[in-house]
Amino acid sequence: MTNFDLLIKNVDIITMNDGNMIIENGFIGVADKKICFVSDKLPDDVSFKKEIDGNGKIAMPGFVNAHSHSAMTLMRNYADDIALEAWLFDNIFPIEAKLTDKDVYWGTMLGIAEMLKSGVTAFADMYMFMDEVARAVTETGIKANLCKSPVQFFEGGELKRLDRSQGTVDYYNQYHNSADGRIKVFVEIHSTYMFNEKTLTNAAALAKQLNTGIHIHLLETATEVQSSKRDYGMTSIEICKKTGVLDVPVLAAHCVHLTDSDLEIMKEMNCSISHNPTSNLKLGSGIARVPEMLKLGINVCLGTDGASSNNNLNMFEEMNLAALIHKGVAMDPQLMKADTILKMGTSNGASAIGFTDTGKIAEGLKADIILIDTDKPHFYPKNNPLSTLVYSAQASDVDTVIVDGRILMQNREFTAIDEEKIKYEVHALSKRLLGR
Amino acid sequence: MTNFDLLIKNVDIITMNDGNMIIENGFIGVADKKICFVSDKLPDDVSFKKEIDGNGKIAMPGFVNAHSHSAMTLMRNYADDIALEAWLFDNIFPIEAKLTDKDVYWGTMLGIAEMLKSGVTAFADMYMFMDEVARAVTETGIKANLCKSPVQFFEGGELKRLDRSQGTVDYYNQYHNSADGRIKVFVEIHSTYMFNEKTLTNAAALAKQLNTGIHIHLLETATEVQSSKRDYGMTSIEICKKTGVLDVPVLAAHCVHLTDSDLEIMKEMNCSISHNPTSNLKLGSGIARVPEMLKLGINVCLGTDGASSNNNLNMFEEMNLAALIHKGVAMDPQLMKADTILKMGTSNGASAIGFTDTGKIAEGLKADIILIDTDKPHFYPKNNPLSTLVYSAQASDVDTVIVDGRILMQNREFTAIDEEKIKYEVHALSKRLLGR
Repeated sequence: MTNFDLLIKNVDIITMNDGNMIIENGFIGVADKKICFVSDKLPDDVSFKKEIDGNGKIAMPGFVNAHSHSAMTLMRNYADDIALEAWLFDNIFPIEAKLTDKDVYWGTMLGIAEMLKSGVTAFADMYMFMDEVARAVTETGIKANLCKSPVQFFEGGELKRLDRSQGTVDYYNQYHNSADGRIKVFVEIHSTYMFNEKTLTNAAALAKQLNTGIHIHLLETATEVQSSKRDYGMTSIEICKKTGVLDVPVLAAHCVHLTDSDLEIMKEMNCSISHNPTSNLKLGSGIARVPEMLKLGINVCLGTDGASSNNNLNMFEEMNLAALIHKGVAMDPQLMKADTILKMGTSNGASAIGFTDTGKIAEGLKADIILIDTDKPHFYPKNNPLSTLVYSAQASDVDTVIVDGRILMQNREFTAIDEEKIKYEVHALSKRLLGR
Repeated sequence: MTNFDLLIKNVDIITMNDGNMIIENGFIGVADKKICFVSDKLPDDVSFKKEIDGNGKIAMPGFVNAHSHSAMTLMRNYADDIALEAWLFDNIFPIEAKLTDKDVYWGTMLGIAEMLKSGVTAFADMYMFMDEVARAVTETGIKANLCKSPVQFFEGGELKRLDRSQGTVDYYNQYHNSADGRIKVFVEIHSTYMFNEKTLTNAAALAKQLNTGIHIHLLETATEVQSSKRDYGMTSIEICKKTGVLDVPVLAAHCVHLTDSDLEIMKEMNCSISHNPTSNLKLGSGIARVPEMLKLGINVCLGTDGASSNNNLNMFEEMNLAALIHKGVAMDPQLMKADTILKMGTSNGASAIGFTDTGKIAEGLKADIILIDTDKPHFYPKNNPLSTLVYSAQASDVDTVIVDGRILMQNREFTAIDEEKIKYEVHALSKRLLGR
């Protein structure tokens, strides 16, 4: 008799495999961090160290939050319903100038706690004090794609764009594939407007040298369209192509304002796009051309962006929005179907952030699995489970979260994270930061 | 010493009064179904039959779901991501043809259970077997505006528009102000395209005779714009004005496709509009001109529509969407601010559906109060409570629901409703209805 680590039994399984196979009342086995079987019946001659009864629950791959600045939870509900410039320059930047490494650690811990509670098993993060972000990821058991900028923008208040490539190399060497492979490291390019042609070229070369990808903000606002034309005489996508940025795996956040030609380039260069609908709407940035991206075959995933422009890290809200807004804008209810949305929230995101061995429930893949408790009024009667997850479910319906076969949350209680301590520390430091 | 029924203490209170007064760490007293005090300190010489500690919670007026077909919970997640006609004619109508009074009762009970769990204390409903809807409202303790059509559209499969005014009069006499005033009755006009000039005129006269309002679907789709022009030679708003429909209090659902002149008429005639963003987006109907409605001073409230086009009855999602989509479409982050959104979800809705003595937390008004549990990661750090409710909160954060001073839910447990029985009955009848 083979003894496996974990059995999830009697559970409806959304595999997210090609063909969207759904297994009703099925069984998932986990051994050595991986899924060792997925079936509608229990194999013979097996035993398990631990069992979870999935009756009344749906099992699906964990969500991948493909674009976030987790520590910006610290500025949640701090500055809302104001113009982008006032939000950024009068509210966010002054707080960020005060941030210490400890603040970023606790802000990231808060973000990770919130993400796990809403079923996120992996996320991509771009922020400052990235050693602290790596520490929080390592400690909590979640997976993350972290990035580090090879450029320091300011010195003494002046825009200098100083070369810090060595810092990126060191960060990569220290953290890439660390935490038992739970961390991947990309090169950060904040944006084409903060970089210039030389630093873009250098960053692209560095990513090639490290054999890794690039995480970049691209064409979030109409302002960037203008500044790129002014500074480069071409679109942001075109200058990225010219400088070699698109030669490596690219995770491009936002991409709200793309030309037809930009879309073609992104498809040709196999870029991934993180669609962040809440943030794009809330900041008045506009509405990305997602149905056209998908039609072209571009890998589109979903992200929350920072909690300061959202104001939470809730992938159910991003799925719901992504499913709804494009139908409404195009007046076509057949766009953005539930199965597409679920792929965007899971497997598309996993490959975009460099985790190729997760995002689906299939034998041999890493056991990054969440269970959704559907024994609640808003899930009755039980009909199409794909529609259920996209249109009816809330983050709070996530009951259990498993990453690399390790149970991080069960019955909505963390197994290893001290939630009370995180809330206490964030409350304490927010008084200093926000003066409240 | 005066002995009151209920005290909610140590609670942050969003009063929704003019000026958006917020009382931190305050006290709400309830006696004889009403709020007898709201204060930052406890009055002298008072005692209470029951106390609720509101520490770590926000108190606010209950939500008003201003447009729903509650029993359509029975078709939840049954037909999604398809064209409007296929949705309605091939999926919804065939199920509705099979509905019995018992089905509508249990579907409404399910809808009410879901709404209470998400903080709704009053709703407006339009459906069939309205006696069963009144029974469910009476039994559960929630408030509702129910309506009854004076026209039977079909007989033997043929469109006949038969006069059933007496049925509406009887329904009004039986239920208006029944259930201790928790039920109001309006006249139902399904739409201008299902009615004609004569039946519109008769329905308007009937509402005047009963001294009540009208609940109507208005200009939900671009198709209605065309059919109104064809059938009446004018817009739906114009034919409503001509036939006297707008002479009484009107609750108009959707209003997606209004001309400038239509907007002016609705303002002039003091109509209320229920904005139902999820349904309008999901069915591809379009995006209503809500910022312009508000600028004109029209009373705009929020509704979920039926769960078959949503797919839940969650006012937090409607608030979040209403706050986000108009910012994104107009590329203006200063539109649809959090305080406006909260008014749309509460006090605007209360007056629209005929309950003038609720929708705010103020002395003398009915005690329709909900408590939101903010001791969760996605609420930290504690900043602007208005932003918190619109941008961070989920329906599952509602901890306690009080209607007319009666606690219907506490710690997310119903005090009087048998949730398990509702789920059981709905599961059983859905097998017959949906064949699953």
